[in-house]
Amino acid sequence: MTETPPTSFGYDLIATDGHARRGRISTAHGPIDTPAFMPVGTAGTVKGMMPENVAATGAQIVLGNTYHLMLRPGAERVERLGGLRRMMDWHGPVLTDSGGFQVMSLAALRRMSEDGVTFQSHLDGSRHHLTPESSIGIQHALGSTITMVLDECTAHPAPHETAADSMRLSMRWAARSKEAFQPRPGFALFGIVQGSVYDSLRRESAEALTAIGFDGYAIGGLAVGEGQDEMFRVLDCTLPFLPTDRPRYLMGVGTPADLVGAVRRGVDMFDCVMPTRSGRTGQAFTRHGKINIRNARHQDDPRPLDAACDCPACARFSRAYLHHLNRSGEILGAILMTWHNISYYQDIMAEMRAAIGQGRFSETAAAIEEGWSKGDIDRT
Amino acid sequence: MTETPPTSFGYDLIATDGHARRGRISTAHGPIDTPAFMPVGTAGTVKGMMPENVAATGAQIVLGNTYHLMLRPGAERVERLGGLRRMMDWHGPVLTDSGGFQVMSLAALRRMSEDGVTFQSHLDGSRHHLTPESSIGIQHALGSTITMVLDECTAHPAPHETAADSMRLSMRWAARSKEAFQPRPGFALFGIVQGSVYDSLRRESAEALTAIGFDGYAIGGLAVGEGQDEMFRVLDCTLPFLPTDRPRYLMGVGTPADLVGAVRRGVDMFDCVMPTRSGRTGQAFTRHGKINIRNARHQDDPRPLDAACDCPACARFSRAYLHHLNRSGEILGAILMTWHNISYYQDIMAEMRAAIGQGRFSETAAAIEEGWSKGDIDRT
Repeated sequence: MTETPPTSFGYDLIATDGHARRGRISTAHGPIDTPAFMPVGTAGTVKGMMPENVAATGAQIVLGNTYHLMLRPGAERVERLGGLRRMMDWHGPVLTDSGGFQVMSLAALRRMSEDGVTFQSHLDGSRHHLTPESSIGIQHALGSTITMVLDECTAHPAPHETAADSMRLSMRWAARSKEAFQPRPGFALFGIVQGSVYDSLRRESAEALTAIGFDGYAIGGLAVGEGQDEMFRVLDCTLPFLPTDRPRYLMGVGTPADLVGAVRRGVDMFDCVMPTRSGRTGQAFTRHGKINIRNARHQDDPRPLDAACDCPACARFSRAYLHHLNRSGEILGAILMTWHNISYYQDIMAEMRAAIGQGRFSETAAAIEEGWSKGDIDRT
Repeated sequence: MTETPPTSFGYDLIATDGHARRGRISTAHGPIDTPAFMPVGTAGTVKGMMPENVAATGAQIVLGNTYHLMLRPGAERVERLGGLRRMMDWHGPVLTDSGGFQVMSLAALRRMSEDGVTFQSHLDGSRHHLTPESSIGIQHALGSTITMVLDECTAHPAPHETAADSMRLSMRWAARSKEAFQPRPGFALFGIVQGSVYDSLRRESAEALTAIGFDGYAIGGLAVGEGQDEMFRVLDCTLPFLPTDRPRYLMGVGTPADLVGAVRRGVDMFDCVMPTRSGRTGQAFTRHGKINIRNARHQDDPRPLDAACDCPACARFSRAYLHHLNRSGEILGAILMTWHNISYYQDIMAEMRAAIGQGRFSETAAAIEEGWSKGDIDRT
């Protein structure tokens, strides 16, 4: 028996349409067609979903959160269980963040230094120290297909000087992360552009990262309150300074409208808790805009959430039943709403990929946006 | 195109082994191999499970609770949505209880009379009146394959006179329920034996019901605190007075040991929230007894919950991962534990059915019980 040589990590640009890019990422754990949306599997599970059902929506990669996993069940334990993919029975690639973002948003008693960040767990108050080197080590233990450098997500708003200092710290950490990363065929390390809303800082950051050299480039520090217009403006002044032969990943974004706008500008990868978190509170994203299934107007409605969707929630159940499940706090309500939202996110990504390949991205994007603007078909 | 004539409701006794019975129930919505365990789908969902996954465990029928469904989403609404089976996308038969049991255990301000019971909803305090006729009417609206008569579940312990009065009220209600029931091919109405722990009352009740004539006979008022020995004794003095050509259903029972003991005595059908409710609190029933997956001893255990089980929880995930999910309050933890418990319940029912057919029920039952007595394989 001969072994297949391991796939090397790479990005193939298949087609462009304006700035929008249709591509394919090769990894040790399977391909990722881009533009791609990555469902978030915070603590080793995409909340409420069996992994094969996540895959069946079209998702090819899921994201895990280093902060959550290092605290519980613990990176060494995950490693003993064969890594994150084996533990959660996810067959495709996984991307893990560095832990830095959640240290800032969740942990108590954070103390930053040049070396790294010391914090207390939000779960049990235990003390931890995260450095570029330890973050990369943890992500190795998790078996991440795509590892992210440790960075500081600059708070918004930040004065220019604060944003510059923060970004330059992240750049030094990026270099240390690269140093600590163990290259393996088909695995990747991504750098993260910071610089707040300042064009010159974003450019400086993009150029600094490109000089270090990464397998892919993320844009961090957005969707933190600056608003969609400002986010798009920052993308417009950042993306030109990133290499075209590497994937670009907009972290923590976003709404369906954010995805369409960012794909239009040349972003290849996204992650966000929105489809899963919203699903658990009865919010659905549909071809006709947002729906709150808990609203009384759905209580007798025999129609599906989204008539054009073929997910189980839409193909087999009525709005009235979904309303009932969600009002009753039934687990199946969270399951079905999450399933639909992930399906819808994957569906619009697939639509956009096909449109870019056929040179009709603008028309497709306009049609998607027009659907939302009509409002729910039910509003009579 | 010619229409298939509707299946009539019936019970075929295929084999006996001692008192244990292997049979098959025919219904308008598909067959039920007996002895059978019916997972409970209280409010129109087996909590945490997709209906096709419930079916894949081997379950052929699920139970719905009239009390819950009449209050939310409401029987008329369920009817407009095509009935309970259509609403919840369950393709097999459903059995609904009469609502009486939950009125007693959940509702506020209950007032009993010869006519029926008046109560306030535990959800919103709204006032409702349930009579034998209205209970049957509600179950018709739900589209129940098997309808249960309204009865009073006699509290335990009850003095003989109280138990006698209560049972005789239930018998008068049984006659009214029969009168109200609309026979349709393949649909059934079951009577319910009451009489507390008194042999003579149980016999009187069984004979009264048989005289009225039902499609099946349930034994109610057990598993209410009398203990397993007493429950088995009551079964031994009740079952001989029930017709052998109709299914016998022990309501609200029970543990795996209860099921084995009751099948040995000639019971054909069971329902209980135990596998689903326990699953949501991290309790698993296995071939080696009960396991609390939240216990720290599982936190590094790469082995499955039950090595002989082929449910997804056991076939694809480690105890360590299940421990993590359950300790983290992840929905997937409840899903997988529930899935396993329902699978295990179905597996022991299937084992018992096969054993009865082959005349080796005693050996099979002894082997099942011996497995539990060994304790978890993990306890070292």
